[in-house]
Parts: sequence; structure tokens; C-alpha cells
Amino acid sequence: MASLLGVGAEITAMIGFEVALAEVEAENGFIPAEAAAAIAHALATFWPDMARLKAGTARDGVVVPDLVRQMRQAVEEPYSKHVHSGATSQDVIDTAFVLRAGACLDLLEQRLAALASAFAHLSGRFGERLLTGHTRMQPARPIRAADRIESWRAPLLRHIERLETVRRSTGVIQFGGAAGTLDAFGEKGLTVRAALAARLGLADAPQWHGQRDRVAELAGWLSLVTGGLGKFGQDIALTAQAGDEIELSSGGSSSAMPNKQNPVDAEVLVTLARYNATQLSAVHHAVIHEQERSGAAWTLEWMVLKQMMMAAGASTRLASTLINRVEALGR
Amino acid sequence: MASLLGVGAEITAMIGFEVALAEVEAENGFIPAEAAAAIAHALATFWPDMARLKAGTARDGVVVPDLVRQMRQAVEEPYSKHVHSGATSQDVIDTAFVLRAGACLDLLEQRLAALASAFAHLSGRFGERLLTGHTRMQPARPIRAADRIESWRAPLLRHIERLETVRRSTGVIQFGGAAGTLDAFGEKGLTVRAALAARLGLADAPQWHGQRDRVAELAGWLSLVTGGLGKFGQDIALTAQAGDEIELSSGGSSSAMPNKQNPVDAEVLVTLARYNATQLSAVHHAVIHEQERSGAAWTLEWMVLKQMMMAAGASTRLASTLINRVEALGR
Amino acid sequence: MASLLGVGAEITAMIGFEVALAEVEAENGFIPAEAAAAIAHALATFWPDMARLKAGTARDGVVVPDLVRQMRQAVEEPYSKHVHSGATSQDVIDTAFVLRAGACLDLLEQRLAALASAFAHLSGRFGERLLTGHTRMQPARPIRAADRIESWRAPLLRHIERLETVRRSTGVIQFGGAAGTLDAFGEKGLTVRAALAARLGLADAPQWHGQRDRVAELAGWLSLVTGGLGKFGQDIALTAQAGDEIELSSGGSSSAMPNKQNPVDAEVLVTLARYNATQLSAVHHAVIHEQERSGAAWTLEWMVLKQMMMAAGASTRLASTLINRVEALGR
Amino acid sequence: MASLLGVGAEITAMIGFEVALAEVEAENGFIPAEAAAAIAHALATFWPDMARLKAGTARDGVVVPDLVRQMRQAVEEPYSKHVHSGATSQDVIDTAFVLRAGACLDLLEQRLAALASAFAHLSGRFGERLLTGHTRMQPARPIRAADRIESWRAPLLRHIERLETVRRSTGVIQFGGAAGTLDAFGEKGLTVRAALAARLGLADAPQWHGQRDRVAELAGWLSLVTGGLGKFGQDIALTAQAGDEIELSSGGSSSAMPNKQNPVDAEVLVTLARYNATQLSAVHHAVIHEQERSGAAWTLEWMVLKQMMMAAGASTRLASTLINRVEALGR
Repeated sequence: MASLLGVGAEITAMIGFEVALAEVEAENGFIPAEAAAAIAHALATFWPDMARLKAGTARDGVVVPDLVRQMRQAVEEPYSKHVHSGATSQDVIDTAFVLRAGACLDLLEQRLAALASAFAHLSGRFGERLLTGHTRMQPARPIRAADRIESWRAPLLRHIERLETVRRSTGVIQFGGAAGTLDAFGEKGLTVRAALAARLGLADAPQWHGQRDRVAELAGWLSLVTGGLGKFGQDIALTAQAGDEIELSSGGSSSAMPNKQNPVDAEVLVTLARYNATQLSAVHHAVIHEQERSGAAWTLEWMVLKQMMMAAGASTRLASTLINRVEALGR
Repeated sequence: MASLLGVGAEITAMIGFEVALAEVEAENGFIPAEAAAAIAHALATFWPDMARLKAGTARDGVVVPDLVRQMRQAVEEPYSKHVHSGATSQDVIDTAFVLRAGACLDLLEQRLAALASAFAHLSGRFGERLLTGHTRMQPARPIRAADRIESWRAPLLRHIERLETVRRSTGVIQFGGAAGTLDAFGEKGLTVRAALAARLGLADAPQWHGQRDRVAELAGWLSLVTGGLGKFGQDIALTAQAGDEIELSSGGSSSAMPNKQNPVDAEVLVTLARYNATQLSAVHHAVIHEQERSGAAWTLEWMVLKQMMMAAGASTRLASTLINRVEALGR
Repeated sequence: MASLLGVGAEITAMIGFEVALAEVEAENGFIPAEAAAAIAHALATFWPDMARLKAGTARDGVVVPDLVRQMRQAVEEPYSKHVHSGATSQDVIDTAFVLRAGACLDLLEQRLAALASAFAHLSGRFGERLLTGHTRMQPARPIRAADRIESWRAPLLRHIERLETVRRSTGVIQFGGAAGTLDAFGEKGLTVRAALAARLGLADAPQWHGQRDRVAELAGWLSLVTGGLGKFGQDIALTAQAGDEIELSSGGSSSAMPNKQNPVDAEVLVTLARYNATQLSAVHHAVIHEQERSGAAWTLEWMVLKQMMMAAGASTRLASTLINRVEALGR
Repeated sequence: MASLLGVGAEITAMIGFEVALAEVEAENGFIPAEAAAAIAHALATFWPDMARLKAGTARDGVVVPDLVRQMRQAVEEPYSKHVHSGATSQDVIDTAFVLRAGACLDLLEQRLAALASAFAHLSGRFGERLLTGHTRMQPARPIRAADRIESWRAPLLRHIERLETVRRSTGVIQFGGAAGTLDAFGEKGLTVRAALAARLGLADAPQWHGQRDRVAELAGWLSLVTGGLGKFGQDIALTAQAGDEIELSSGGSSSAMPNKQNPVDAEVLVTLARYNATQLSAVHHAVIHEQERSGAAWTLEWMVLKQMMMAAGASTRLASTLINRVEALGR
């Protein structure tokens, strides 16, 4: 997850965008075929000077202008000017994000399916035992362990179902040029966009640089994932606190009480859920995107969206660890 | 919207639940047919003592226990004990909420469709005129007014598409009894639940009283709606500020400058968007629902969810007013 | 609390502002002494037509323009035009809010002091008994009940100390006129403002209509109050769940399990804390106040600030009830 | 700022805590003077194996247990067991945080004072020129540039005043041992704690590991700082958008429109303000701290608190840059 969301993957995706763009523009007669070939050739081995890139990002508020400068320096003349032609920063960044987000969703889907199986397995082992049901945080009637496990498992299945909608929202190209109107391509704008989308394995769609509902929908899904697993973690911590209805293999140790076992995983699942429940608010504020493109709203997305994906990644990983630590449930 | 979400509609939906429950229980042999008839008869004209209900709610943290007491007093003996049998408070409240939420979604869908048409109409009138495109809040290349209008309209169409998923998540019965296990109905639990769902016009589903992803998904949709319309409001306010690219018919007046026209609708659209973006966080925190049922998490939902629906209702209404106030756009 | 924050108290405070303003303006020669007398006389028995006021508020986005219209109609001619002269809506609303907020803070301070005493009393009764200390939600070493009670009491004392700073921030007049420059009063602007502040019992300060840190500081304090009491509620719910270290007198009842006692107060304390922790975010977003006065940011404040005060009022009230329900603590 | 909040500074502060603790314990007869000397000697040149530390943190949920293990390995026998005696993880981490937070507050105070001076200087240069006042985002009466500059400057002065309260809240030692009762020190607990506080340059106070109002107050202050500067940024972006009332020296460049100047600093100030307004909510949720010490709540603090301080650091730095870029204001 970290590698999918890291700087390296981002730059790789951006380079891929620029290469695909040049090829599509050559096919449609906007740049010479030699230019596309030169760009593809040069960018195949290109890697930016990261220190310079960092300074440029601080100055421009976005990584693309300096990245494009460096790419152009890498491409032999007279073709350098054809790099990034007709595109704007947000085209590159949003599309690069969408590509990596798709890979993250694939990974999360696998993990959710594995977690659902692990819960089903847990239910198979301990489902018929009894747990003290708790309502309003107080002991109520006994329930089967299977009942509580189902409250952890069923949301996972719905998250997987919801992915279809989320992918439809986010698996789309962002491409509009400077003001979103593809004006560099005259009447062929839609053709170029569709070809670029196809080449990148994305669905085609009109530019959405100021329409951030797609991104907010993704963030909502991430928070649903961490929220449901947060409930799992909290339930485990509460059951462990009561003491006689669960056995866990070793958790974290304490610096003051070496023999105490702390269900650190369970607690961190709660933390990650509250973290994403908080961050989600920022992404929804960013939907109020000023005019054609808002740097303020967009930067706010960046500051929290990757963190939310990382949190979802950590949550699914920790949940798996925690399930494996359950050595007995119920009585 | 207010009437769909008001106390009156809530109590009506709860009464409907209890009548339907009695009928289904009679059909399945859990209560005498005479009891169901007596309950249906009495509740047809029943209305609770609201002062008593309020006091009971303060004491019990939830409206149902006292409402059931009052219902039982209204039903002739010996049938009063059959009111609410096998159900718990959350069954009544969540199902009553789901019924009203469905009606709200229907209303919102109509409004979103009407807004999309109104934007299309606006684009028909002014779409070919020019607006100064703005990126990073600064004047950039000119765009067609149609381009900006599309950034307001396209999300509405996606919101309507998303409704299918949201309805699948929320148009379902909540019915589980005290600990969620339908234990009052022995082997016929699923039959009773399915019949009750059918009678109420809802999909059947296992109880989800501790699985609040359904509710959080609904809340996320509401915030997407207000967010997109908030962008519309903000864009109008910014365009009006610049002064020469929009004409609005009269807005609010100022107590200090009687001739000044304030685009109050536009500002309030921004407010409602930020309001829902904030409240959404609370609903996602409530997904971390302790054990079988958590009063703390559930009450938090109630404190914000109706407000979010009201905000979406106000936002769609104000957006319609604001569109109608646009007398010219572009130059 | 509700009455301090209700519409009635708001209108009363606004009327008081307009009367005081007229008197100060008369003293400083800006309006005739007869005008101030006529205004004071008419407004002494004035009450607005609430239906008309509501319609005006919907139109203007703020209550003041129509309220002023109604006041002017109530004042005999030729003096009606002197009502509200030199002031703007936000002067009236912010100052009216500040006056009522001051009364709310006084009430909350009394309650916090009473709660601190009640906790001290609880510690006197049960402080030397033992409780199972819990770290990371797991049983750890035993602690004295006094230790845990102190974790509930000590923050209350700090909240009371912090009030000094909060009052210094919020107990100040807001008065600037249309653009905040007191331009109606020429060189005497500061004199008029100081006199108005003194008459209203507030500190004098330059206008702060676009500087909302004062309000956000107040909101932060309210959330600290509910947060600390939320911890108390959560600790009680958790201790009650464990079962043998606390005795509570009757809480809420359950519709499904008549004999079960639910610590509803304790849960609602958690809810109110999470509610305010969420709302606080909106108030801090509203600090990003556009230019001289932003209707969008200001309306957002209104939508949550009174709710936050109400939540703090409810929290202090419920905490008192809950302390009184503790019949035994520790073993 | 980054260096004050980085891992290196954290470990240095933790080492300092353990050295001071050993010295104080030796002075009070809890460990041999030779042990304190051996610990001070060994830790003077100690630096942990970071890879091992990272693995330990993942396992234990907190850095301290493994750090203590490594410290003990560095101290010659038979003294290693005296490292960290009587303390718990949270003592070390909270106190180490408080020490670094104090340094950050000092730095922020200097920057706020410098910003206030810079605004005063700006007002000296351009204060008498006119700006179009804007209320409800619409042009209203003209104001002096000094009026608007004052709305940026005055909150800074209040933030500096508020620091007194914030420092009183946060400049205190956290020291309680495993369950917060200092039970390792018998009747001398308070003496040891006071001596440790004095040695670290902190105020003495009872343990507050479960009372997180101190931390939430700090977070609120940070968000007030970024909020006020966010208003400054937003006002600059809006003024630049209108076009003829401000001149800025070069900002960020655009990849699509090389000649366009984007006020990136101004936008990022808005972003940072919305970021902190969002994060603040998480810190207030963390006030609802379960029982003696909650890993879930505490980890949530960590995930956002340093980020909030970094945001405040970035905001003060960018605001300074942006002021310097103002070449003319008003007309």
C-alpha cells in the first residue's frame, strides 16, 4: 500500500501519462510521430532530480511544472516542447492518482475478501459458543458468537459490493487542458481524450477537475472500511476487558507491567476508524471547489486522501493479524 | 422535507411498524388474530400524550419504551401485552427512520432531476457566452458558460445514479429483537422478518443494528449533494463579486446599505455544504458502534442525521431559487 | 440554558442593543434626545410579528433588516429613522450573542463548580476504596477510587480557570457599522463605541466581525467541557459493564428487557462530547471568514454554536444527575 | 519546526527524561547514586537501533518498551534495571512531547510577533489607501487598507496573549507510573515528581495521562493560528482575483499558462487552516479517554497533533513570505 501511494509510484504514473499523451497526440496528428517516439524513448529511463523537484513544488504549489521542465530537458530537441502539450497539472496529477487508487482498491478488495473468509472461519470454529450480548454497553441476553462475528463480517461484503460504484466513479480519466475545455485539440478533443483513457486502462469521461464528488465518494468508502473494522477492534478490546470470553495470543507489551498483554491491534483499529472519520470531513469540504480549479481545495484533498488510503491499508492488515490472534471466543 | 422528518411522521411510522408487526405475528401464530385486530383497531386512532412521551424519552434515552406503554394502554385487554412483542426499541426506530428516509430520497431525487433540467435550460440560454475561467482563484483563459454550468449539473446526474446503491443499503428492514437474534420467534424468525419487511415495502435483510455502514453511506450521499450545490453557490458568489459576468434578480437586503443586493441563497448553499461536510464526520464516528447496540453511537447519529437531511432539503430548494434568479450569465 | 439561547432572549437582547445605541447616540449628539426617548419608550413594549420576521430572515439571510423595519414602524415619527442608525446587522447579532453567551458562561461556571464539589464529595465517600485500574482498556493495577474521580474533577477546575481567558475574548462589544469603520460617527466613533459597550456591560474593543477567533475560542472551551464529562460518562459505562465495582440507582428502561437498567445518562455524556468535538470543526472552518463580513461563514457559526452551548448545558446537567446516581464505587 | 518535531528530537527528549529520572531517583534514595551516574554516562552517547525500534513500536503500539530495552542494554550492569524505574510509557512520551511543544510554541510566538510587525509595516506603507470593502462576498463601501490589515493583525496579538494560558496548560510534567499513582515511590511520590519537573524545566502537576484537555487546548490554539492566517490567505486570493487592488511579486507558475501568476502561498494558507480545523476534531474526540490510559485515544492524538503543529509552522512561514510579496495594496 505504502509503495502504491509513495512518491516513486506517483512519478512513475505521471511519466506514464505523459508518454501515453504524446502517443495519442501523434496518432491524432497534433505532434510529429518522431516527437512521440523521442518522448517515449527519453522517458523510459527518465527519473527526476528529486531535490530540484521538491524546490519547484514548494514554489509552484504542485509538482507538475518542474517535473515537465525536467522531462523536457531529458527529451532531445526539437521535440522537448511536445511534452505535456495540451495538458495541465491537474490532468496529470488527478489521472496519476486515479491509476494508483485503482491499484489500491484492488488490493483492499483482496484483503476484504480474505477478512470475510477469516471471519467465516472464526465463526465456524467458535460460532456456536455463547457470548454475553451487550446493549447500551451493559450485559444483556446471551448471543451466539456467530451473531457478533456476523456484525463484523457482513459490512465487509457490502464494502466489496460498493466497490463497483466506487470504481465507476473513480476509474476515469481526468483530462481537460488549461481551462478544462481541451481547446488545444479543436474538434478532436473528445477523440484524443477517449484514446488517452483507453491507453491508460481508464473509462472515458468529461473533465471533472472541479467536480470532486468522485474523490469524496472514494474517501467515504475508505472510511466505511476503517469504521467497520474499528467496531471489530473496539468489540475485541471490550470483550478482552471483561476477561473470560476471549483468548488472544500475545499483543503488545507494557514498559511498566511486563506481564500485561495489551490488545494493541484492537486499539489501533479504533484509532484508524476515528482518524478516517475525521479526515473524511476535509475531503467533503474540498468538494466546495472554487470555479474551474481551486488550489486550496485540491491541496486539502492531497493532505488527507493518501493518509486515508494508508489508514485503510493499515486497518485491513491489522484486522487480519487480530483475527489470527483470537484463540478462543465465547464460552 | 421538514414534515417527512418531523416528530409527527416519526410517530406515524412507528405506529405503522407496530401494527404491521402484530399482523405478521398473528399470521405466523405468535399472537392471537384477535390481538392483531385489536391492536390495528386501537392504533388506527392512537396518538401519544406528547408531554409524557418527552419525559419518558429523557429518562430512557429513547422514545420507544414510553410509546409502547402508551400504546398498550390504548389497546383493549387482554391484548395489550401483544403490542411490540419480540421487538426492541431499535427495531422500531431504525425501521421508522428507514421508511421516512426512503420518502426523503424520493423527494430529493425529484429535486435533483429538476435542478439538472434547470441547469440544462440555463445552459441553453447562456451556454455559448463567455466567462472568465478561473484557476487557483485567478483569472485564466475564457471558457464557455456551458462549461461551468456543466460542472454544476454533472454531479447531480451522478448523485441520481448513486441513489440506486444508497437505496439498496438503506431501504431494508431492521428487525432483530432484544439481542438481535429474533429469539422470540424460534425457527420462524426469518419468516416473520421477511413478512414484516414485505408488509412495510422494504427489502429483507439480517439485522444491522450494530452495522451502521448503511446509515453512514446515506449520510455520505447527503453530503455529496450539498457539497456539489455548495460549489454552485460559491461560484455564483464569486462571479457576482467580480460583477460584470452575472445578473441576479433580487436577493437579500442589508440593514445598513438598503440598495445593496446580497446573494444570500448562494452563501447559504456554501454554509449547508460545510455543515454537512462537518456532520458527516459524526456519522462515521458512530460506525464504531460498541457491541450489539450502543446508545452513545446511536444517539450521535440521531443528533446529526435528520439535520443532514434537512440541510440537503434546504440546499436543493435554495439551489432551485438561485438558478431562477440568474437573469444573465457570461458576456 | 434553552431559555438563554432561545429566540425570545435573542430578540430581547437585540432590542436592548438598539435602545442603548439610541441613547448613546443622543448623548453624543448624533440623534435628537427626543428620538432616543421615543425609541426607548416604543421598544419597551415592542415585540415583533414573528411570522413576518421569519419570512424576512429567509429572504435576507439574517433577522436584523426586518426586525429593524418592524421596530421603526413601532416608533413614532419623525423618530423612526433613528433606530439602528450607524449600525449593521452583524453589530446587533454578534453583540446580542455575546450578551447571552456571557449569561450562559455564568450558568456553566456555577454548574462546573457544583460538579467539582459533587466529585469531591464522591471522593470523600468512596475515594479510599479500590478500583481495577485499566490501561489500554485492559485490567491493570488497582487504583484508589479517588484517583479516577480526580481524573473527572481536575479538568473541571481547569475549565473554570480557563473561563477568565474565554470571557476576556468574548465579553466584548461588536460595533463597526456597515463596513466596520464606524464611519457614521466621524471622529467620535471610538467614544460612541466605548459608551455603548459600557452601557451594555461589555468590554470595549475594535470591531471583530471578520475576526472569529473569539467565537472559536468559546467553542473550544465548550468542547473541552463536554469532552471531560464525556470521559466521565464513558468510564461509568465501562465500569458498569464490568459489573461489580459500581452501583447506580435506576437509569433508563428497555422496551425489550424491562428489568435491565441502562446508564443512559452516561452514554449521552459520550454522545454530547462527540457531538461537540465534531461541531467544533465547523466553527474553526468559519474562522476563514471572507473579507469584511462573510454570510457563509457567519451562518455556519450560527448553525452549530448554539447547539454546542446547548450540548454543554445538557452535559453539565446530566453529569450532575449521574453523580447523584452513584450509590457505590469501588470495592 | 520539522526538526523540533522529528523522531530525532523525540528520542533526545526521551533520553533526557530517563537521565533526569535516574538522577532524581538517586537523590531521593530510590536507586544507587552509581546507577544514576552509569545511566547518565551511558545515555550521553546512546542512540537506539532505529530498525529494531520501529519493529518494537509496531508490536507494542508505542515506542517506549523497546527504547527502554535498548537503553538497558547500553547501561553497564548491575545498573541497567534502574533505567525507567517507576515510570510508564506515557510518562516518557507525554513529557517528551511537552518539552518539544514548548520549544515549538516559543518559535511560533516569535513568528507571530514578527508577522504582527510585518502587518504593521504593511499598514504603514499602504494603510491610508482605499480598498473596496466586501460584505457577503459582494462589493460594499470603501474601507482603508489599514482596516483590512488590522483584521489580519489583531488576531495574532490575541494568539500571543493566549499563549500564557496554553503554556500554563501544557508546560507541565506528566509523571504517574504504571497506574498513575506513583506507587513505586511510596510517600515520596510528590517529592520525586516535583524534583523531576524542576530538573526538566517544567511546572509540577498531578498526572494527567487520562485528562487530555491540556492537549486539546494546545490543538485549539494551533487551529486558531492557522485559521486567522487562512483568512489572510483567502482575502489575498480574493483581492488578487478582482485584480486592481493588489500587486504581488511572483508566485507559483502554471504548467499550462506560463505567464499566469498563481498566489500559491495564499491558497495554501487556506488549505492549512481547513486542515487544522478538521484535525482539531480528532484531538477533541481523544479527550474521551477510556479509564486510566487509552491507547486508542492516545494514538489518535499522535496521528494528528504533530501534523497540526507542522501546519502551524508552515502557515506562519508562508504568511511571512506572502506579506513580503505584497508590493502594493489599495488604490
